[in-house]
Amino acid sequence: MLYFITGNKNKFSEAKAILGEVEQIEMDLPEIQGLDAHEIIRAKLLEALHHHDGEFLIEDTSLYFDCLNGLPGPLIKWFLERLGNAGLAKLTDISGDNRAEAKTVVGYAKNHEELFFFEGSVRGKIIPPRGETTFGWDPIFLPDGYDKTFAEMSRDEKNATSMRRQALNKLKKFLESAG
Amino acid sequence: MLYFITGNKNKFSEAKAILGEVEQIEMDLPEIQGLDAHEIIRAKLLEALHHHDGEFLIEDTSLYFDCLNGLPGPLIKWFLERLGNAGLAKLTDISGDNRAEAKTVVGYAKNHEELFFFEGSVRGKIIPPRGETTFGWDPIFLPDGYDKTFAEMSRDEKNATSMRRQALNKLKKFLESAG
Repeated sequence: MLYFITGNKNKFSEAKAILGEVEQIEMDLPEIQGLDAHEIIRAKLLEALHHHDGEFLIEDTSLYFDCLNGLPGPLIKWFLERLGNAGLAKLTDISGDNRAEAKTVVGYAKNHEELFFFEGSVRGKIIPPRGETTFGWDPIFLPDGYDKTFAEMSRDEKNATSMRRQALNKLKKFLESAG
Repeated sequence: MLYFITGNKNKFSEAKAILGEVEQIEMDLPEIQGLDAHEIIRAKLLEALHHHDGEFLIEDTSLYFDCLNGLPGPLIKWFLERLGNAGLAKLTDISGDNRAEAKTVVGYAKNHEELFFFEGSVRGKIIPPRGETTFGWDPIFLPDGYDKTFAEMSRDEKNATSMRRQALNKLKKFLESAG
């Protein structure tokens, strides 16, 4: 059985729609400190395999600012806690470079020896917050080619643009080809 | 026996000079993610008590920028990795507020139930790097009332200013009064 380890129902629904055979599971896995989403996910997958039978998925979706040489990345939650969306937008504005990348890394553990990673990314700009403030940094990310922030899009619009969908589609192809 | 958990000989020498009865020990303790030095230290102390007999000290010395509402704090290592000292100085410069606090938190675990914390802090300014570049962010921190960065000071000068010494002196008084 394949389990997607997440507490987020929307993320699970999206993965289920793409992958089909997958179950949601919640596990409280320690998050190692760092900037490398692969390493953070790898540590969590190995921990999950210790505690539970099955195959596992974990994803990390983070925001990488050009003006901060890739920060905050997986540290985005702490930046949001201290600066908020308005503070983050101000920071990129004063830097003179508001370019950013929204990137998803999906890690898949078949077993302790076979771990695979799949990425999706969307380039865009950081702008002052617009739209619903319910989900993280969605109000300040304006993807290239769109005039709406993620927070102003419907769920379907956002999923169509989504770095998470790109990564999940790559995983789907991999699982199909692995048969 | 009281053990100071650190891989840094200079930090240990300073603690030994102040506290007297203390031994150095190196332990590879996982660092939880976060902005709260107390929580990070607490997790490490509890882990150390699981693996080794004795009483333990751990310290965290971090840099807190006013312009980032207290970031980077314990995340300073990742900021340094991505931006370097010159990048950090530029960041505070463009923000228009280069005020910062250098803060040490020392945690002392007598046992699982008795954990104590002692703090020391020094206010100052972030400036373009000056002096030896051997130790972290020392080249960009100019403490109030001095015309040298930490990196330009001799070891004795720096220790006399030190937020670490303040915290260790508080611990020393506590240990003496606890008898």
